[in-house]
Amino acid sequence: MTERKEFRDLATPEEARAAIASLEIESTPERVPLAECRGRVLADRIDAEIDVPGFDRASMDGYAVRARDTFGADERDPVELSLVGVVHAGEPPDVDVGTGACVEISTGAVLPAGADAVVPVERTTEREGEIVFETAVAPGDSVMAAGADVSAGERALGPGVVLTPREIGLLSALGVESVPVAGTPVVGVISTGDELVRPGEAIDHRAGQIYDVNSYAVAAAVEEAGGDPVLYPHAGDDYDEMERQLRVAAEECDLVLTSGSTSASAVDVVYRVVEETGELLLHGVSVKPGKPMIVGRLSTAAYVGLPGYPVSALTIFRTFVAPAIREAAGRPEPPSATITGRMAARERSEEGRTRLVPVGLVEDGEGATLVYPVDRGSGATTSLVAADGFVEVDADVDYLAVDEVVTVRLFSPDVRPPRVLCVGEDDPAFARVVDDVRNPRYLADGTRDGLRRLRAGLPDVAVVAGPGARPADADELASWTREWGLVVPPGNPDDVTALDGLLGSGLRVSNRTTANGLRGTFDAALEDLAADRDVAVGELTDRIEGYERGRRAHESPARAVAAGDADVGLGLRASAEKLGLGFVSLGAEPVSVLASPDRVEKPGVRDLADALDGIDDVLGEIPGYEPE
Amino acid sequence: MTERKEFRDLATPEEARAAIASLEIESTPERVPLAECRGRVLADRIDAEIDVPGFDRASMDGYAVRARDTFGADERDPVELSLVGVVHAGEPPDVDVGTGACVEISTGAVLPAGADAVVPVERTTEREGEIVFETAVAPGDSVMAAGADVSAGERALGPGVVLTPREIGLLSALGVESVPVAGTPVVGVISTGDELVRPGEAIDHRAGQIYDVNSYAVAAAVEEAGGDPVLYPHAGDDYDEMERQLRVAAEECDLVLTSGSTSASAVDVVYRVVEETGELLLHGVSVKPGKPMIVGRLSTAAYVGLPGYPVSALTIFRTFVAPAIREAAGRPEPPSATITGRMAARERSEEGRTRLVPVGLVEDGEGATLVYPVDRGSGATTSLVAADGFVEVDADVDYLAVDEVVTVRLFSPDVRPPRVLCVGEDDPAFARVVDDVRNPRYLADGTRDGLRRLRAGLPDVAVVAGPGARPADADELASWTREWGLVVPPGNPDDVTALDGLLGSGLRVSNRTTANGLRGTFDAALEDLAADRDVAVGELTDRIEGYERGRRAHESPARAVAAGDADVGLGLRASAEKLGLGFVSLGAEPVSVLASPDRVEKPGVRDLADALDGIDDVLGEIPGYEPE
Repeated sequence: MTERKEFRDLATPEEARAAIASLEIESTPERVPLAECRGRVLADRIDAEIDVPGFDRASMDGYAVRARDTFGADERDPVELSLVGVVHAGEPPDVDVGTGACVEISTGAVLPAGADAVVPVERTTEREGEIVFETAVAPGDSVMAAGADVSAGERALGPGVVLTPREIGLLSALGVESVPVAGTPVVGVISTGDELVRPGEAIDHRAGQIYDVNSYAVAAAVEEAGGDPVLYPHAGDDYDEMERQLRVAAEECDLVLTSGSTSASAVDVVYRVVEETGELLLHGVSVKPGKPMIVGRLSTAAYVGLPGYPVSALTIFRTFVAPAIREAAGRPEPPSATITGRMAARERSEEGRTRLVPVGLVEDGEGATLVYPVDRGSGATTSLVAADGFVEVDADVDYLAVDEVVTVRLFSPDVRPPRVLCVGEDDPAFARVVDDVRNPRYLADGTRDGLRRLRAGLPDVAVVAGPGARPADADELASWTREWGLVVPPGNPDDVTALDGLLGSGLRVSNRTTANGLRGTFDAALEDLAADRDVAVGELTDRIEGYERGRRAHESPARAVAAGDADVGLGLRASAEKLGLGFVSLGAEPVSVLASPDRVEKPGVRDLADALDGIDDVLGEIPGYEPE
Repeated sequence: MTERKEFRDLATPEEARAAIASLEIESTPERVPLAECRGRVLADRIDAEIDVPGFDRASMDGYAVRARDTFGADERDPVELSLVGVVHAGEPPDVDVGTGACVEISTGAVLPAGADAVVPVERTTEREGEIVFETAVAPGDSVMAAGADVSAGERALGPGVVLTPREIGLLSALGVESVPVAGTPVVGVISTGDELVRPGEAIDHRAGQIYDVNSYAVAAAVEEAGGDPVLYPHAGDDYDEMERQLRVAAEECDLVLTSGSTSASAVDVVYRVVEETGELLLHGVSVKPGKPMIVGRLSTAAYVGLPGYPVSALTIFRTFVAPAIREAAGRPEPPSATITGRMAARERSEEGRTRLVPVGLVEDGEGATLVYPVDRGSGATTSLVAADGFVEVDADVDYLAVDEVVTVRLFSPDVRPPRVLCVGEDDPAFARVVDDVRNPRYLADGTRDGLRRLRAGLPDVAVVAGPGARPADADELASWTREWGLVVPPGNPDDVTALDGLLGSGLRVSNRTTANGLRGTFDAALEDLAADRDVAVGELTDRIEGYERGRRAHESPARAVAAGDADVGLGLRASAEKLGLGFVSLGAEPVSVLASPDRVEKPGVRDLADALDGIDDVLGEIPGYEPE
């Protein structure tokens, strides 16, 4: 093991920010054509080099005149001027306007010499080749003087301006062909971990392989912050190769990010390369997640080591790295990247270090933003989409109180809080309906969670299935039934015909967790069987192999049967038919969609209710589903 | 002239929206690699096809055990288990865990067969090859079960989701290599007008040529709305060529936009092509600007004719066309595209048609957004950057009252209202200081406007020069002097030495407008001269050729001298030296930067004050500038 520089105390978040700021990530300003500069940031001030317009320009169709010639003209005493020529836009005048004369002129054309005003055509009449003016005009009327819009030498745009269509319009008017813009820092992304496989490649679950989440997610976040991400092939367990890649990335990039190098050997490699080629600034930050963060310099590139879990990696990126990339790219953070709301639940925090708590967002009935903690366990990628961002809680804060106002940093400025939040049973028909609603969030965490959270006032809608009480005040938006039973291999080889066939059969059963309504329906059927036999239900369940290990998702037991990992799965006819398996029907259970009474007028809930109006078409397409 | 379909009444804005919606702009969904999908919109729902993790996964470094073997273990009565192997992340276990045995396991590794829990290494000790456990664990402890994060068959993401880094992370976890996304409508942009020249090409002012503003600005706006813009070479005055381009664009694009085709001949061409190949839906909308808008169909493409003035074109695009492109691209409008504020000034509106009033934004001392109308005249491209967006005022509204709350549609979701609004004298030193401030707006409209608007409570800061009273309550942030006088050709060929040399000299003088402080200083000097000679000042000014025609911008008179259009220009030593001209000094005039007293604590004003602390360095670099 390399001798490591000692960091006795974890750095504070402020020290980590200062360390990253001190790295001064570089980016090389460049010149880009006007057609490609949208969204870039102007590097230098641009002064007008020409007058706009470049000439005295008619701003109406009419007649160019000497204003003095029209003085005193009115309806009773009109003035007649001789028409001596015509000038169109885009052509040089071939005639001057002398006293007593006028020239027909188009909008945008050059005011001929001698003229100092334009009389709009609708305020004139023609009489025998003479033009009759019944109103007087002043010098400059209906003329845009040269330079009146922009004058040569004027400051047009300053450095730091984000180039949007309007700035591109102004630059066009000035004839600018290309613009100096802040450069794009090149950011290398190296995901390390023996078990990582690039998405799209084959994966071997039995060897513990998982897909590499951070490479593409961090690359996208780099791009969003204004950097140019470069993915390096992940290093696997070949530490020589990892060292080589770090050295190459350090040469090619302005900033190098690694993630997931938590193994001692990988950290050793990082230490070695950083200490040989650059400088280690800190290792370890007093923030959860992100404690193992490393900051340093690799030859000419800045270096930050991110945590391996995806939510942690994006959270730490967003908190510490994105601001530094934005700074290097000259881009301010969009205002849409943060949002304010109030806590919907108390959140305890006794960590002694700063916490970045993942949170979801939902609007209440009055349109106010509620913020709730999302805890799916570290390492869960679903937290990425179940949460919208995070709240920073200082080390000395013991808890966030209900209704406390907090600032949420969204994972991305493009994250939109959901328009309708649905929690409850994992149901395929409901999942299809949700597809017809704009920007919903459907947390299929089971009926129990749906009801519990609906009672706590958090979601807009709960999806509930199986037996059990429903809140009396909830608004039922729709209901249906679904056929449930036992999913078996094709042809039902074990000849399962009813519940009692599972008892003591030795068949491996794949169950659902108690959070799910379907499990409740299964347990109620077992209770009935126990009552029939006059035994305790535990006597029956003890004789079902696998009863105690439940699966969270509705299709998982059926998939276990399909994979040969179970002989019987608790499930729906819909799943059995979808996967080409056998099915033993045990009945139909009700599913209902319940809206919180104070949210029924919320636009997202109304959209959902509209989509549920078409539920019968959806039910008709799913085996075993019926309107109630 | 082609026989035109008659549109007796102007369409209402609602009818125009409906007509454009009825065009149903197409876009072809496509499949893009995960690495290129950021910002795109998912076209179909994506269900998980694998479990994540795909295996029971250790979530800590430690020992894989049968939980039952640890039951009852505590400090006084520890359990010892035999270490029978080791399993690392990314490799298949080569050993099972039997009763009384344990296996060393790394975070992320596959739980070996037989084991059902992991005991973290820090809760164990080693003794003579045996591992000692002083605490009991339950089945599942420190293990993430297969599918616990995402289960195969679960709905992962729904259609319509904007793909940000977090969705890309989830898709990576699912092993997805490419995703179906909503297509990008192809939008042709044709700018028409005889006088238009593409930016970067040479321009002939004397022939009335101007740079084509709309092509690049509209193309950028198309891109921002989610379209793929295609620029067609502008058609000039060749109507056969314009017709050919319209037909080609109609074949190649999903939507064709023209702008500026207000001439009767150009409109004739559009009518002919639309009526021959498609259908004309409307011509003329009761909205200012935008009255001449045309909506129709060209063979398979939608067609909209935009007005020619840039601000009008972008306003009409933003109001009517961008929503249709967003719809076709599946992208909702970002919330940052609109902002709410209250009117800082009364705005009359007696048009009888809907008005889209360009407005600027400024925050007051309390952080509330003030909205003020910007009227620089139709056709002014500076309105593009002097305004931030526009307010829609219905036809039946007579006026917007002071303090009325209005919704502002920003020209772009990326437009940031300025952090500090400065109005006043066009001063080169101040312009340099402003470059050091983030996102300022400096309207160099002259001292008179600066003072007037500061008194009305609009800007944060006024820049004032020349004689005249200053508001007593304003906070002076900085002041300096600048040397002014007469700019003459190099070598001063007319031997001008003082003001009286202009009188009756026949020399062509280029003056500044009365809005400017420098003009005030010039006039004060003329008043002094008149007093010396005991004559009315008018007697003097009548003898200065060109006195009555003033130029707005500070460098314009000097540039007129450089171009030979004037013999003498009112200006600064700084301008004369910059342009290599001669200079006759007439004195030094004061310039001061005055902050509104209720804005001095505003962050943007504090930034400006900080930048002004370095004014002496700036003054040292500009000829004729001195600290006061």
